Amino acid sequence: MVERAFNFSPGPAVLPYEVLEQASRDVVNFQGLGMGLIEVSHRSKPFIAVMDEAEALLRELMGIPENYKVLFLQGGASSQFFMVPMNLLGPGKKATYLNTGTWSKKAIKEAKLFGEVDVAYSSEDSKFVRVPAQNEYTVSADSEYLYLVSNNTIYGTAFPEFPVVDTMLISDMSSDILSRQFDVSRFGLIFAGAQKNLGPAGVTVVVIREDLLDRAPATTPTMLNYKTHAEKGSMFNTPPCFAVYVVGLVLKWLKKIGGVPAIEKINREKAAMLYAKIDESGYYRGHAEPASRSLMNVTFNLATPELEAKFIAEATAIGLNGLKGHRSVGGCRASIYNAFPIEGVVKLVEFMRQFELANPA
Amino acid sequence: MVERAFNFSPGPAVLPYEVLEQASRDVVNFQGLGMGLIEVSHRSKPFIAVMDEAEALLRELMGIPENYKVLFLQGGASSQFFMVPMNLLGPGKKATYLNTGTWSKKAIKEAKLFGEVDVAYSSEDSKFVRVPAQNEYTVSADSEYLYLVSNNTIYGTAFPEFPVVDTMLISDMSSDILSRQFDVSRFGLIFAGAQKNLGPAGVTVVVIREDLLDRAPATTPTMLNYKTHAEKGSMFNTPPCFAVYVVGLVLKWLKKIGGVPAIEKINREKAAMLYAKIDESGYYRGHAEPASRSLMNVTFNLATPELEAKFIAEATAIGLNGLKGHRSVGGCRASIYNAFPIEGVVKLVEFMRQFELANPA
Repeated sequence: MVERAFNFSPGPAVLPYEVLEQASRDVVNFQGLGMGLIEVSHRSKPFIAVMDEAEALLRELMGIPENYKVLFLQGGASSQFFMVPMNLLGPGKKATYLNTGTWSKKAIKEAKLFGEVDVAYSSEDSKFVRVPAQNEYTVSADSEYLYLVSNNTIYGTAFPEFPVVDTMLISDMSSDILSRQFDVSRFGLIFAGAQKNLGPAGVTVVVIREDLLDRAPATTPTMLNYKTHAEKGSMFNTPPCFAVYVVGLVLKWLKKIGGVPAIEKINREKAAMLYAKIDESGYYRGHAEPASRSLMNVTFNLATPELEAKFIAEATAIGLNGLKGHRSVGGCRASIYNAFPIEGVVKLVEFMRQFELANPA
Repeated sequence: MVERAFNFSPGPAVLPYEVLEQASRDVVNFQGLGMGLIEVSHRSKPFIAVMDEAEALLRELMGIPENYKVLFLQGGASSQFFMVPMNLLGPGKKATYLNTGTWSKKAIKEAKLFGEVDVAYSSEDSKFVRVPAQNEYTVSADSEYLYLVSNNTIYGTAFPEFPVVDTMLISDMSSDILSRQFDVSRFGLIFAGAQKNLGPAGVTVVVIREDLLDRAPATTPTMLNYKTHAEKGSMFNTPPCFAVYVVGLVLKWLKKIGGVPAIEKINREKAAMLYAKIDESGYYRGHAEPASRSLMNVTFNLATPELEAKFIAEATAIGLNGLKGHRSVGGCRASIYNAFPIEGVVKLVEFMRQFELANPA
């Protein structure tokens, strides 16, 4: 095994090493076919089996009910920002959005192109330090759906529990899908770009309730209608084969280590270690309010930007990579997705202790 | 080196073996970073260099003028079918399309959602056996563009030369980009799904003249406006990192072996060998009219579907893979893209000779 860095990158992000090793082998020669995985026709039996297995594993691991379709699409989560309202809104129709960060803001902007948008809550004035409790917003009865970002990668916040409302939920789960257990049946649609908890960049998973497939206007371009992809098992056109294949490997790995319940336990341990260090120190200040803290992205600041730069540089020098906060907010961020090893968290906490001693406030 | 099959698949398709080997190494550990290529942040210096190099190589190999942008997008060529008219047409605007096969038909369908479409030529009645000569259609003066598919993968036809007209050309070059020399400056926009001549599935190259970037209506979703991606160097959102990276490796390989002039010479040799076999035999019937023959996809029939099935099965058994025609037309098809080795063509021609002897008509 090569010497591995601890990769705190927010995405593309660390993947299980055994997944990389398998992918490395299959890229050159897939199943002894004398062809690499990325050379094999998407219509061939070996590749169709790859697609089928990835879907079956996702269904099993997430507990996706029978009346939902699983789609593997392209265009990133950013394309779902407009595909959701393009398929589900329209003139005279309304949706409710909770504005808890950069990605919900972008989704709100796109939704306004297709219908009425009610932003029922926003934490923008407080630099998105929190997500709302359910009594802090109202969902009007005529809303088609309530849209929320389950985990806000940039600000390090997350919904600890999902809203219990009569309205159908739609969620961007790009940065925390499969990190914790939840009930899929309360959602009409869930989507996630793969490059955090699922695999490499280049594929977006969409889980959609079947009755929603018939709502797109007749003027919807074929490729932008969820029904097109649902009817063809995500094979209407050539899928992003390699990305789906790696997602399948990641799901196999997750199943092997015990599935979502097992990884959730580890994720809670990893996050708790970092938040404990932040809370005890006073030297490091957490960005998110404690009740809204993310298990995936731990955001914090030091006293000055200069000290933060020094912290990040010294961390990088000892193999703790990718700790710089998003360019829009600065500070530090430790992204600790499913595949991030607990040893890396231990090492970071120890480094935080040493750095504080060496650089007194 | 593993034993390689000869992969005649129409796409995803054969790639240079040295590209697979390099990808295999980098997937596990990229540039000694202790991180795999698919784990590295797209905002990191090493990955930005990957994007920049892929673009620079494509510009060099295709001779792309300064006033064009190169975009790496997702969604396949199928998404360009609607993005082109969404960005460049509109109510009261007209475009001219040449209908020479399945992919132009699909593009025509999407274009009709956005403006007036004049189908100036169609070979559909003759099972798409040919493309038109220039005196066989008229482009009306008020057309925004003339759209053509340079090479028709399914029917095995191609434009031997591109139209010389006052109207701006737009072309789907998915199945023959970089296979032969041509003058980019006669086109307003060129696009190509990568999975034939450029790399793996999952990225689409778009080459667009800069003055076309300002034509999208204000109601265009952000991700569907070419300008969004042009202004951000295809990094508005997370790009399909692995696919772009492999495209870069393929372009490096192509440059090393002499670029487009060198590969065009080989492509013409490979295709000539197969067409010569077809023409001399009477046993194999070429689908395309000789003047419209593709250099990339050689389509032919045997006397009966049963004989074709036997031909394909016996070919597969000796390592000649992927010779089955598209499911919509049947017959046989040998796809011989840039990376397909000439030895495979020699072996196929010899097999065709033997099969004919063993199975007299």
